[in-house]
Amino acid sequence: MDGVKAQAVVPNVAAGARGVADALSLHPNGRMFDRFLRACRGEPTDVTPVWFMRQAGRYMPEYRALRERYTLLEICKAPELALTVTLQPLRLGVDAAILFADILLPLEPMGAPFEFARGEGPVVHHPIRSAADVARLQVFEPEEGLGYVLEALRLIRRELDGKTPLIGFAGAPFTIASYLIEGGKSSQYQLTKQMMWSEPAVWHELMTKVSEVVRRYLRAQVTAGAQAVQLFDSWVGALSPADYRRHVLPHVRHILADLETTGVPVIHFGTNTATLLEAQREAGGTVLGVDWRIPLDEAWARIGYGTPIQGNMDPLLLLAPKEMAVARAREILAEAAGRPGHIFNLGHGIVPETPVETVQAVVAAVHGES
Amino acid sequence: MDGVKAQAVVPNVAAGARGVADALSLHPNGRMFDRFLRACRGEPTDVTPVWFMRQAGRYMPEYRALRERYTLLEICKAPELALTVTLQPLRLGVDAAILFADILLPLEPMGAPFEFARGEGPVVHHPIRSAADVARLQVFEPEEGLGYVLEALRLIRRELDGKTPLIGFAGAPFTIASYLIEGGKSSQYQLTKQMMWSEPAVWHELMTKVSEVVRRYLRAQVTAGAQAVQLFDSWVGALSPADYRRHVLPHVRHILADLETTGVPVIHFGTNTATLLEAQREAGGTVLGVDWRIPLDEAWARIGYGTPIQGNMDPLLLLAPKEMAVARAREILAEAAGRPGHIFNLGHGIVPETPVETVQAVVAAVHGES
Repeated sequence: MDGVKAQAVVPNVAAGARGVADALSLHPNGRMFDRFLRACRGEPTDVTPVWFMRQAGRYMPEYRALRERYTLLEICKAPELALTVTLQPLRLGVDAAILFADILLPLEPMGAPFEFARGEGPVVHHPIRSAADVARLQVFEPEEGLGYVLEALRLIRRELDGKTPLIGFAGAPFTIASYLIEGGKSSQYQLTKQMMWSEPAVWHELMTKVSEVVRRYLRAQVTAGAQAVQLFDSWVGALSPADYRRHVLPHVRHILADLETTGVPVIHFGTNTATLLEAQREAGGTVLGVDWRIPLDEAWARIGYGTPIQGNMDPLLLLAPKEMAVARAREILAEAAGRPGHIFNLGHGIVPETPVETVQAVVAAVHGES
Repeated sequence: MDGVKAQAVVPNVAAGARGVADALSLHPNGRMFDRFLRACRGEPTDVTPVWFMRQAGRYMPEYRALRERYTLLEICKAPELALTVTLQPLRLGVDAAILFADILLPLEPMGAPFEFARGEGPVVHHPIRSAADVARLQVFEPEEGLGYVLEALRLIRRELDGKTPLIGFAGAPFTIASYLIEGGKSSQYQLTKQMMWSEPAVWHELMTKVSEVVRRYLRAQVTAGAQAVQLFDSWVGALSPADYRRHVLPHVRHILADLETTGVPVIHFGTNTATLLEAQREAGGTVLGVDWRIPLDEAWARIGYGTPIQGNMDPLLLLAPKEMAVARAREILAEAAGRPGHIFNLGHGIVPETPVETVQAVVAAVHGES
């Protein structure tokens, strides 16, 4: 399958014709620079592009070494360190770099500081639960509130020098609101849903502020050099389709309608979204990101083959024997059936216990090299 | 809608014709005794039957009063107390009683004792992680290992005297195995999936033992008087359809194929199961239980209108203003469109903060009384 695609799109790679290679944006090593961006636009590529959510992280020894000296937030706030970490996973052969940052960084300039408590995930010091709390939140200018992220993006883009596309990202309004309201990660989103249903005006005001923050932040990331952006609505799968449409979709659309005018692809990602896909596509985005619960062919049947899809291996499969992980990656490629517009990824982030060799083997398998 | 249904099925209720009422299994108060059981069989009913997962629990003052004197496990293990608690929610007007027990009760007689740690949920003292651990697990006889549950069922059935149907239940193999392996509630099921993928023989042996325990336990519950049983595969929605089919479905089928021969309806329940419904139906069961993520009409379109459905209100909607909860209950009835074979329930259990009045208002709305 990959062989057929490669032949159709890049007829002269084997002959090493440099002129043709340049025209097809090939790297001197024969790799297509922009296969990730082409797939985001639904265009054919030589092989399926692949990157991983949380591809820079604790599973890599070079990241762990850096984390012995710096906290996660220190790395995010020092552009040179964020650059270093962003580049670390490129040795795995992935087709895109994603900015090293955290979806909660906007909370501090909004006026809702948080910290990562040891072993407990993020803790928001003063959760947002009333109209007065929401009124105090600031809609800030990204260059002022998150200048360090934008500086990191500029540095990384310069360093990548067009050889690997750079992805920026932000959390989506529901997911960020859930942290603000619950004060951290939640299992049921009880307080979040209570505000949504019982205090709809407060909810609307909170979502309006968060979505304007995210809109400005992602637009600033594009200006700073992000060639694609991903909107992480990681926890939106807790909602029914009816609640998503009533209480979330308009706010996501506020962000994505504006980003469409920038021309950069937007990956609209969530987990547990099997019954939300149509509504998410209405909300906007160039590519839909889905998790392992939704077979790619089923996702495409729901949203139409014209929308590129990113996904969808269970990240915990990277803890399985390497041969099994590779076999499952091939099953996902088979589901995609060689259609243009598939970006291989996990259904959620890499976990710390993942062996680097398994990640490398999956990259090679997706690229048809094994 | 309900009026039309009532008229078609129970023409003479208004005239108070006792002979007809008896033939239609009407309570002297005009209520159909067995509308829950009829709906489980896909038969028409006067109004839509309703019960709630965790309908006996902390949200009820009479339960909280009892819990000041006894722990949850003490109540489960004393048949008279289990009887008392099982009957408590009947004052709400629900159409079925469900045995008060816990899905983890079989762990102790299997040889994997646990306790409920304060504020942390269940803690299994020695999690099951190796072939040797699995080898030590016992497949016990229910009358020996869980005689107190069966005694409670006999007591409750006698007390209900045919006026309200009695539901028994057990956890499904994946859900129970996840507690055994993780040692408690998990967010990602990392160790569970690792065993499933990396130690398939150990996984298979564990699932074989658990499913035989559950098969015997549910069969014994039917013998003791349960008129329907629910299989709780609460956490199976963490799996892809492919993994469900390979590693779970055969074990669920082992249980459900046997229960089919008893003639009692089996409700096969899970959450997050939008893409698993077809496979769950293949695994067996009379009724499929779905959560709020899957609109009832979409669920039926996937599995066919011949399979009754139970669900599917978000339990947190019971924390919303009462009028909103009632309106959303009516929306669910509208999705069901008056088809026979709908049992109204939540998508998961009632939470402790739920106001009793809201539950009562939803029952009345489902029964068309308001």
